[in-house]
Amino acid sequence: MRIALDAMGGDHAPGPIVTGAVDAVRELPDLTVVLVGDQERIEAELAQAGEIDRDRLPIVHASQVIGMEEKPVVALRSKRDNSISKCWGLMAAGEVSAVVSAGHTGAMVASSLMNAKMFLPGVRRPGIAAIFPSHRGPIVIIDVGANMNAKAEDLYSYGIMGSIYAENVLGIEEPKIGLLNVGSEEDKGNDLTKTTRALFQNGPHADRFIGNVEGRDIYEGHARVIVCEGFVGNVLLKAGEGAVEFLFAALKQELGKLLPELGPEAGHKLAGSFKALKTRFEYQEFGGGPLLGLRGACIICHGSSGARAIKNALRVARTMADEKVNTQFATQLKAALDLIPPAASEG
Amino acid sequence: MRIALDAMGGDHAPGPIVTGAVDAVRELPDLTVVLVGDQERIEAELAQAGEIDRDRLPIVHASQVIGMEEKPVVALRSKRDNSISKCWGLMAAGEVSAVVSAGHTGAMVASSLMNAKMFLPGVRRPGIAAIFPSHRGPIVIIDVGANMNAKAEDLYSYGIMGSIYAENVLGIEEPKIGLLNVGSEEDKGNDLTKTTRALFQNGPHADRFIGNVEGRDIYEGHARVIVCEGFVGNVLLKAGEGAVEFLFAALKQELGKLLPELGPEAGHKLAGSFKALKTRFEYQEFGGGPLLGLRGACIICHGSSGARAIKNALRVARTMADEKVNTQFATQLKAALDLIPPAASEG
Repeated sequence: MRIALDAMGGDHAPGPIVTGAVDAVRELPDLTVVLVGDQERIEAELAQAGEIDRDRLPIVHASQVIGMEEKPVVALRSKRDNSISKCWGLMAAGEVSAVVSAGHTGAMVASSLMNAKMFLPGVRRPGIAAIFPSHRGPIVIIDVGANMNAKAEDLYSYGIMGSIYAENVLGIEEPKIGLLNVGSEEDKGNDLTKTTRALFQNGPHADRFIGNVEGRDIYEGHARVIVCEGFVGNVLLKAGEGAVEFLFAALKQELGKLLPELGPEAGHKLAGSFKALKTRFEYQEFGGGPLLGLRGACIICHGSSGARAIKNALRVARTMADEKVNTQFATQLKAALDLIPPAASEG
Repeated sequence: MRIALDAMGGDHAPGPIVTGAVDAVRELPDLTVVLVGDQERIEAELAQAGEIDRDRLPIVHASQVIGMEEKPVVALRSKRDNSISKCWGLMAAGEVSAVVSAGHTGAMVASSLMNAKMFLPGVRRPGIAAIFPSHRGPIVIIDVGANMNAKAEDLYSYGIMGSIYAENVLGIEEPKIGLLNVGSEEDKGNDLTKTTRALFQNGPHADRFIGNVEGRDIYEGHARVIVCEGFVGNVLLKAGEGAVEFLFAALKQELGKLLPELGPEAGHKLAGSFKALKTRFEYQEFGGGPLLGLRGACIICHGSSGARAIKNALRVARTMADEKVNTQFATQLKAALDLIPPAASEG
């Protein structure tokens, strides 16, 4: 399995990105990671990595990087030799089975859109899934920002693809699918949710579809795949991160007041608990969110990804790019989309 | 000041609702609370309240209650003698200056919509604001679910009204207004956010408008008023509650493991910290969220409101219904809406 890794994407690239690739290649004997980016800087990082199998860490030079603050389409057009476009180029040419990047999410999506031949049949626009924690384990929320003009058929295909991902990549048995909405009753929501609901109820995954899911139910984990429109999903994802940060800051403040009273030993134990708690809310375990709707795999990582997140993203991308999983995406999606009557897709 | 209180609304009504009214009347000498609901049950609660000024706690009998699971419009039509409609009837007749309820939010909004004469001039549809915590103090997020088909002019009016509320009721000086979006750049988002943004930039509150606010910035508190469409706001509000509950459950679990090691004294101190932390995230302080866009005040409380939340809601409703505040709503809103060119309102 060959995976293209954008070595220049991420807040601290290329250091931890290259380290993540080295760790992944050491752990997974069948993996080759194509490091895409500034050859000289990547070589310098590899030189510090100790003994490695350089044949499984080839470099494809890219002289440009798209900065986090750049406008995706403008940047992709003006910087022809950027690392993100080069990764997708390798994918389109069939030289790799997956793309992984912790770089500019908008540029990753926009670049994937430029080659519709890479889309799975019937997919109008790919969606980004995010992995959230819940009382019952990880859940998939899709779309978290790839598509700002979703139609009901898009959301429907996201649900199908999200459930294949949950089952085959995250290992969740028969994951239930829910539709994010403002109430549990059938007639709640807007035109988009009503049309989407009908598609699920009449589709081949009707038995997995549990109907509307409200914001407060997300963390219960009854639905392991939650479908929503990209604007809502993006706000939800970022607000969730913000809420966790805010709460941890408040927690630190409260416990900080206690520490002098409790003494150093208790303080040490508390710090341990605190750390254990924090890892529960970390994205690093899953490496990042998959871009679903393409032939082949793509994981978009958090900009602040460290080596561990990158290594895990490569591991997840490898599972996702497996031929069996890819066949499922294609066949199940086709079966589901074939059932949509032409008129029903006007969400 | 006379305020109508839906004594039957809320998970534990009428007990804590009536207690909240009694406490408010004791604390605020100029306040009369009209208790709307089952006369017999309210009398029974009042009988347990000790010495009270019954003249300032009159009862208006309503024989029916709208249950939390009922469909608002159907319920309002079939239960003509319900407590929510009776509260709004008192408001429409000018007998009270404000309505407070912890009952069915959808029924509260739907019932208010039935009498457009109660709307402030130019308001097409009222919006519900929720009060969120932030690093810089309370912030107002509007709309959190009253309007599922918002146009740009609705969001614009929510921003103006939210800022008057933040300033006059919450006491925030010159509150900045932000537009909830998927990125900070000007061209981010969908048609609705783009049109709304233009209205703010050209309106009388342009100096207060700080542009786009992403999900993760909410809790920073740079914007003290955050404007969004009702579907997004509703998901945000409920997901925020869910996230806080989830995090507290995880925190309890982690600290629970530590308690046997730390001993009872440290456990006691930790429990105190835990409680202090939890109150930071409670809605009780602000009583509930205002329904903005009406002549007169309305506070919609959380279904699980206790006596303290109800008392605070009555206090906040009293401030909101003040004549000076109401005049501001009317005049500032008119000045802002008058500036919209007819074509710009097609969001």
